[in-house]
Amino acid sequence: MSRTRGGFTLPGEAGYEKLTLELADRWGADVIRDSDGTRLSEEIVDAGYGIYSTICIIRGHNQWARNHMDQLQQTFLMTDPVCAEGEQVPIRLLSGYFRQQFAVNDSGESKELWQVFDRTSNREVSREDWTYDSEAQTVTIHGAVCCHLYTVNFLAYRVWEEISMYNHVTNHWDKEHLMPIDPRSSEAQEYLCQWLKRWCEDNPDTTVVRFTSMFYNFVWIWGEDERSRNRYSDWGSYDFTVSPLALREFEKAYGYGLTSEDFINMGKLHVTHMAPGRKQLDYMAFTNRFVVDFGKRLVEVVHSYGKQAYVFYDDSWVGIEPYAPAFEEFGFDGIIKCIFSGYEARLCAGVHVPVHEVRLHPYLFPVGLGGAPTFSEGGDPTKEAKKYWNGAKRALVWCQIDRIGLGGYIHLVEAYPDFVDYIETVAEEFRTIRELWQQGAPLVLDLKVAVLTAWGNIRSWTLSGHFHETYIHDLIHVNEALSGLPVEVDFISFDDVKEGRIGDYDVIINAGAEGSAWSGGDNWKDDEVVTSLTRWVKQGGVFLGIHQPSMTRGYLYSFRMAHVLGVDLDTGARCCHGKPAYELDERWSGVMGDLGKAEPVAGIWLTDPDTKVAAETVRISPMGDRLHTPTATVHEFGKGKGIYLSHFSYSVPGSRRLLLMLLEAAGREPESNYLCDNPWCECAYFPHSKVLVVMNLSEKAQKTGVRTGRGTLEFILAGYETTFENV
Amino acid sequence: MSRTRGGFTLPGEAGYEKLTLELADRWGADVIRDSDGTRLSEEIVDAGYGIYSTICIIRGHNQWARNHMDQLQQTFLMTDPVCAEGEQVPIRLLSGYFRQQFAVNDSGESKELWQVFDRTSNREVSREDWTYDSEAQTVTIHGAVCCHLYTVNFLAYRVWEEISMYNHVTNHWDKEHLMPIDPRSSEAQEYLCQWLKRWCEDNPDTTVVRFTSMFYNFVWIWGEDERSRNRYSDWGSYDFTVSPLALREFEKAYGYGLTSEDFINMGKLHVTHMAPGRKQLDYMAFTNRFVVDFGKRLVEVVHSYGKQAYVFYDDSWVGIEPYAPAFEEFGFDGIIKCIFSGYEARLCAGVHVPVHEVRLHPYLFPVGLGGAPTFSEGGDPTKEAKKYWNGAKRALVWCQIDRIGLGGYIHLVEAYPDFVDYIETVAEEFRTIRELWQQGAPLVLDLKVAVLTAWGNIRSWTLSGHFHETYIHDLIHVNEALSGLPVEVDFISFDDVKEGRIGDYDVIINAGAEGSAWSGGDNWKDDEVVTSLTRWVKQGGVFLGIHQPSMTRGYLYSFRMAHVLGVDLDTGARCCHGKPAYELDERWSGVMGDLGKAEPVAGIWLTDPDTKVAAETVRISPMGDRLHTPTATVHEFGKGKGIYLSHFSYSVPGSRRLLLMLLEAAGREPESNYLCDNPWCECAYFPHSKVLVVMNLSEKAQKTGVRTGRGTLEFILAGYETTFENV
Repeated sequence: MSRTRGGFTLPGEAGYEKLTLELADRWGADVIRDSDGTRLSEEIVDAGYGIYSTICIIRGHNQWARNHMDQLQQTFLMTDPVCAEGEQVPIRLLSGYFRQQFAVNDSGESKELWQVFDRTSNREVSREDWTYDSEAQTVTIHGAVCCHLYTVNFLAYRVWEEISMYNHVTNHWDKEHLMPIDPRSSEAQEYLCQWLKRWCEDNPDTTVVRFTSMFYNFVWIWGEDERSRNRYSDWGSYDFTVSPLALREFEKAYGYGLTSEDFINMGKLHVTHMAPGRKQLDYMAFTNRFVVDFGKRLVEVVHSYGKQAYVFYDDSWVGIEPYAPAFEEFGFDGIIKCIFSGYEARLCAGVHVPVHEVRLHPYLFPVGLGGAPTFSEGGDPTKEAKKYWNGAKRALVWCQIDRIGLGGYIHLVEAYPDFVDYIETVAEEFRTIRELWQQGAPLVLDLKVAVLTAWGNIRSWTLSGHFHETYIHDLIHVNEALSGLPVEVDFISFDDVKEGRIGDYDVIINAGAEGSAWSGGDNWKDDEVVTSLTRWVKQGGVFLGIHQPSMTRGYLYSFRMAHVLGVDLDTGARCCHGKPAYELDERWSGVMGDLGKAEPVAGIWLTDPDTKVAAETVRISPMGDRLHTPTATVHEFGKGKGIYLSHFSYSVPGSRRLLLMLLEAAGREPESNYLCDNPWCECAYFPHSKVLVVMNLSEKAQKTGVRTGRGTLEFILAGYETTFENV
Repeated sequence: MSRTRGGFTLPGEAGYEKLTLELADRWGADVIRDSDGTRLSEEIVDAGYGIYSTICIIRGHNQWARNHMDQLQQTFLMTDPVCAEGEQVPIRLLSGYFRQQFAVNDSGESKELWQVFDRTSNREVSREDWTYDSEAQTVTIHGAVCCHLYTVNFLAYRVWEEISMYNHVTNHWDKEHLMPIDPRSSEAQEYLCQWLKRWCEDNPDTTVVRFTSMFYNFVWIWGEDERSRNRYSDWGSYDFTVSPLALREFEKAYGYGLTSEDFINMGKLHVTHMAPGRKQLDYMAFTNRFVVDFGKRLVEVVHSYGKQAYVFYDDSWVGIEPYAPAFEEFGFDGIIKCIFSGYEARLCAGVHVPVHEVRLHPYLFPVGLGGAPTFSEGGDPTKEAKKYWNGAKRALVWCQIDRIGLGGYIHLVEAYPDFVDYIETVAEEFRTIRELWQQGAPLVLDLKVAVLTAWGNIRSWTLSGHFHETYIHDLIHVNEALSGLPVEVDFISFDDVKEGRIGDYDVIINAGAEGSAWSGGDNWKDDEVVTSLTRWVKQGGVFLGIHQPSMTRGYLYSFRMAHVLGVDLDTGARCCHGKPAYELDERWSGVMGDLGKAEPVAGIWLTDPDTKVAAETVRISPMGDRLHTPTATVHEFGKGKGIYLSHFSYSVPGSRRLLLMLLEAAGREPESNYLCDNPWCECAYFPHSKVLVVMNLSEKAQKTGVRTGRGTLEFILAGYETTFENV
């Protein structure tokens, strides 16, 4: 391959101008960016590269904020429950919460939204029965029932922007705490527009303004007690967007009002992993409308200075919703996603925007994920880079990404020449794949897969945050596997099922715990969902359920699709019911037995003695009995099948196994062209370029055959090697 | 000890008269009994022993039954669900059920009770929309919704009495199938009374008529397919008592009617392990009334012939309810309980009846529990006998039992002289303990324990059947431990809690899975239950919760007593919520750390960072994080405590550990008098006789000290040895 250039964003660093420019050349960079807390020097700015500058629009305005403390961002909080000792129950509002993050909003319009609950009787305490002492910031309940639990929902300002708080605390910074401005009011909007105009004027060299991100951070609620520092973190929930003004506007727009309890939800808040309700979806759509409307104005400001506007898809991304229909209205020129895994590359690629950039890992920081010593004593950044790049690459061949980039302090790489070499390889491989995509997409198999969740398309690929934050959910493993498989993948909702938009799929996957958004929660109470899917399986569809698929309570079976799956989950109510005995099925054990080796789900039993068991776990009871629990099953239903797996864990070979199982279940020829016969290798064929990309995704050398239109080709690849072959 | 006699029931065997009388002498028997399928010879009957004869009143009348097929016992059954292919859905009623056990009752009064359900929509199909073809025994639904699931509830006669069926199938008998008569009608009652009179006349030597048991068997529903032979078995449920006549009488008595669905309960039936509802309790009380009323007439017949009447507390025991207030009305002279464990001895002893007899294990059968070769090649009946006797003995010192006995074929012991010797020891030990009890009860500690369940007193000690049938429930382990501890134990209901009848207890235990009768199910939705218990703990009570105590859904916490326990269970809705970090607490680790070593309950977290963690499990996540789950905790609450254990498994040392933990939690002196310092040994002091009983409950020799009023005494005991010491 010849040396290529472009599609690479390098973090510049003042004081290391020579190094910056040298590496920009080595890695073929076309853009240099600043980072949080760094500024680029003139030497770099003048070197002819595109310049990205980072803006977090809602922070860094402490002076304005101090003069408009009522326009800080807010959130509803619930006090920890207090057990009534007598009729008077005083409850200190912020007790237990991180005092540096929150301040009570006890304005009149705020207090109207407060609610006091008797959580023992699940009844609201009427307003006449509680009083507020603003001095002590304490609500006192009068006429309480002794031994009942009471809580107060109240509104708090967030006086420390959370990303700033996190970096500050983690890195022991000693700077002024940045406050987050809520752009809901026209006064704040006016101020921010003016500020952005000034900023554009002051930064003529910037070619791209990189918004980090828009206005509202994902939710981080901290506790005062260090044992309870992390009280809540959710990458996808909307708690930090709320204010009395927002709620008034919501009511105007939707014709009904929201209460604090609609957000507090018995202290559970709106965990993105749980199936959302109608009010929550309405509020999200309402907030999305606002973020798009005001975001668009800011993008227009940027464009008016001849600059481009990219958005960073993290941090204060809430309300942006790149998969919502309104996203295109922003007018962004590009989106940047920091990725650890393949599914995040697919997530980025699927957004309707001209430029898709992924920021690779490891970051150029001394210490990485979970305290790993990446660029410090004992670290091996090259090894990390290989692992991350190979995880990403298997997805990058299946989607069109336009740019890659790094983040952090460039001077850290000086001590790691092999890292510098490896990033050169990364950049070359990336540009080669990008070039192939520019000619035309790779061939996929005749297998169309849909993932069914309560969020549907709006949470395509992701659950809520990165893989290492969500690995307890089976679905992220499924998504990561799918991100590198040669199949078409859609993310569909229960409305899609009800309204019959599933006829084209060969496989529908439903994977998650009871009540979760991934399994679907109460959506399964809708009979039309069940009948539509049942009909689709009867006609030949393959329904793959993982963990507690289609689970809800109050019906004949715990799994609403039990009749299709041929298995159900006993919640305990059937402990006196015999469960059919079975033998392992040889054929299906061979196809998928090793997928079922994960931990069993307690209570799984066969609703039909003819359900084929491909894998099981056996425990010996204290009485010496052998207790069998199926962990992988196949059930014929009409012309289709129900397949059950207790769990799915992502691995490169597991991903291949999943593909082969789905092909077998859907009655496809498993010996298709363009599949590696070694499960550690994957490949993609680009027919327009006539190039076959073969990747060894293991550390060790591998040999693999690939059946092509011209017979089976054999490849021997070094660890993590990728080869591009004209076929 | 001198040789003693009495309190021992020996199974006699015709053809082995000499052996029978020799063993009766060796073991000090005063009574000889026949067994199922055996008759005693004259030689035995005339030897001067009391004679028990076994009667199962509702079977063995096949000729009458054939002439009164409409008076066989019945049950409601639900067909397996059928997925509608089109508008007409034919459902074969008995499909899947054991054809030799059931026959459809399609009489007019029966069909009025049938119900057809759309189980997808949870709606009943109206009677106009289904028809019945009695030829094909098929219900056909008209106008079904395609892809919905349909079931039929119908009434079936039971044409094979289940104990007879079980023995028949297990032992490959080839006799006529016995049919169970339902004594609901006055015609059947008249017939049975006359039959019993004749029987009494024909059996003048019988001194005790042993009823096995009354009328209605516990529930056994078999399937036709051998893979699904056991469809349902529940020692405590009332399904087999139903009939159109019974339901008419119920409606008359209770002012409301019951439907088939009240029994079928979505196919889940009324599992005794699940919390019962009001209708179920009413129906049980109604049936109990009937069984007592007609049972009393039979007992009066027996008495009129100068014989005594004992009842066997198993098999067709349903409706007898020895712990219900009406039981004494029967007028039984004794109760006989077959026991595997200590709790069953306590269960027997607690019944208000003059004579309590326990039938020991092993049975004199070639093959024992779970196919063990007890009295055949490879068996060691003496070892089994030691294990069972020691399990029973530790309970027998704490309750008054009047008789012991064996069952089965006496000739089998001929080949096992050491077994004959050991039973002599058993009989001597039993009679010594009985003698002590006759002088007065042993000393107990100042610690009053209550076990709180949805059944309360009516299911004292037992859950539903034997230990080996119920070992998956923590509570049976707790009960087995308590059965041998020197504390007072009561079994209380939620009404007892609400109505404040808990002031005397030091400890209340609630142990079980969500929704189970043992945890309490929806009883926890009653606020008064929660406040009454909260108040009691505030005032000094110790609430011990095991597994999923006080769990229900729809409240702030999953455990309604979470504020007391200081822990709660996250069902998944809190997966974004931080959980307080903790260190293991040294003091409580010492007291109870080893109780918490069982498997963790997923989702347990500390609601209060000050909750003390005595034990935990640690898993390493796929990302390398250490995931901690508390398995044993202590939480101070007012003057009392909440204690949580993820599980409790019975063992002799574990039982001691439980006692010491409860003493410590209740603030009692753990170094009390009359406790063994070796956890494998237990003792009981009988102050009226001034005798200390010290038992080694392990196979191996043990040394133990016991603190007494006269200082610490030291004992060295051989494996399973018991010593009686004058103190």
